[in-house]
Amino acid sequence: MGDQRAIGIFDSGLGGLTVVKEIVKLLPQEDIVYFGDTGRVPYGTRSRETICKYAREDERFLLQKDVKLIVAACGTVSSVAVDAAEGLPVPFVEVVSHSVSAAVKATKNKKIGVLGTAATIRSGAHRRQILEQLPDATVVENSATLFVPLVEEGWFSADDPVVLETVRRYLQPMIDAQVDTVILGCTHFPVLSEAIHRVMGEAVTLINMGTATALAVVERLAKFGLATDRKETGIHRFYVSDKAASFRKIASVLLGEDLCDGRVEQVDINGI
Amino acid sequence: MGDQRAIGIFDSGLGGLTVVKEIVKLLPQEDIVYFGDTGRVPYGTRSRETICKYAREDERFLLQKDVKLIVAACGTVSSVAVDAAEGLPVPFVEVVSHSVSAAVKATKNKKIGVLGTAATIRSGAHRRQILEQLPDATVVENSATLFVPLVEEGWFSADDPVVLETVRRYLQPMIDAQVDTVILGCTHFPVLSEAIHRVMGEAVTLINMGTATALAVVERLAKFGLATDRKETGIHRFYVSDKAASFRKIASVLLGEDLCDGRVEQVDINGI
Repeated sequence: MGDQRAIGIFDSGLGGLTVVKEIVKLLPQEDIVYFGDTGRVPYGTRSRETICKYAREDERFLLQKDVKLIVAACGTVSSVAVDAAEGLPVPFVEVVSHSVSAAVKATKNKKIGVLGTAATIRSGAHRRQILEQLPDATVVENSATLFVPLVEEGWFSADDPVVLETVRRYLQPMIDAQVDTVILGCTHFPVLSEAIHRVMGEAVTLINMGTATALAVVERLAKFGLATDRKETGIHRFYVSDKAASFRKIASVLLGEDLCDGRVEQVDINGI
Repeated sequence: MGDQRAIGIFDSGLGGLTVVKEIVKLLPQEDIVYFGDTGRVPYGTRSRETICKYAREDERFLLQKDVKLIVAACGTVSSVAVDAAEGLPVPFVEVVSHSVSAAVKATKNKKIGVLGTAATIRSGAHRRQILEQLPDATVVENSATLFVPLVEEGWFSADDPVVLETVRRYLQPMIDAQVDTVILGCTHFPVLSEAIHRVMGEAVTLINMGTATALAVVERLAKFGLATDRKETGIHRFYVSDKAASFRKIASVLLGEDLCDGRVEQVDINGI
């Protein structure tokens, strides 16, 4: 007998929609509850303490929606708030470890680049986990602080000189080090994949956290006997803590489909 | 007899420090209490409702510090949350109306540009107030969403091609319309003045909200008999709702002096 409860997914904002997109591809029958903390975005520039507190509140919200598994679809939470999963009554999937495994599998010259927000890079989570699995790897990290605002402004075309120059600047240390694999350690970054390929060449492997995480969700559901046995397409509900005017534009860029207003509800997350 | 209480200044983040800088220049003897809501920055992409709620909480914090006047050193609050000043027990100064007056005074061809965050521009506050004072003015507005992250990343040099191209893109409609005056409707933007002059030429007048607001504070203190009569330099206290790793770097860019850690205190603002 299947478990018909929803999969819960949260992120600091809308970036996690790139993870939702990949999970839906693999698990179209599953119900999904997404919470995007758009009222407190971004997490990536905040202190560790604040990030942990916010993650706990986001999880409490999802548990109130009776989810069967929680995905922290947020590079910052996954890197910084490792203990934010402690004591959860349901299985927890974060986005760092699975991306690291995918990168370690993909690299041929053992030179791996990591792009993330400031807090993600400062945490050193990717570096640590890469070196655990591949002790003689070379890891080149860089925080690409402007990538999120660029994507949200709709500036991500591989033909845009501002995009290309910004990408080049953040990736130059990785080009110099001749990495053959780059982990896109923030959920917004896959939108810039084409521009990154334009700058680094087609040969580089870009690790999309969404793809790696979706595979982990499939495996986790199977392991705990939590998969649904429904045949129809699942229902996807979206909650945000603030619904700004640019919401729909940004959501459609990240999710790859129009998230019409009727499907999104605004909720109060502070001190939940 | 002078009033020795401090002037209270708040902003969504650290941008208001450019206003503090201008107030200190004119009123070196006054004590200042600054609150930067770095834990909830940015306001500019949030809904009107959220912005009002945050502004109210910021004001309550300053009132607890026994300030004699409150400055909303935030383009977004000043544009969107006009009623956030209602019922305040002390005089209130915002940054829009004084910038508008300065621009109306400066323009010769009655063509004025307004740069701000998305919420500021959407509010139409500058446009409305300009047309009240100068009904036949041409107003060209643009939201320059990437300016804040550029400044906070430290990319503001007038020799940086990314900065110049971004500035050019946001300002092109104003160049096309031949405006002779541009209101920098966000407290971060004065840091980009040199780059803006490089793109638009030296002849354009840039209105710094800090300068216009500092003059209004002097006038308001005099009017209500609230100025200090101290002779020594005032004490400046800084509070933030989150102290991220990049805090000191960004603060020094905006304030123009090193804001060492000992002078800054972190406080909890949620639901104050």
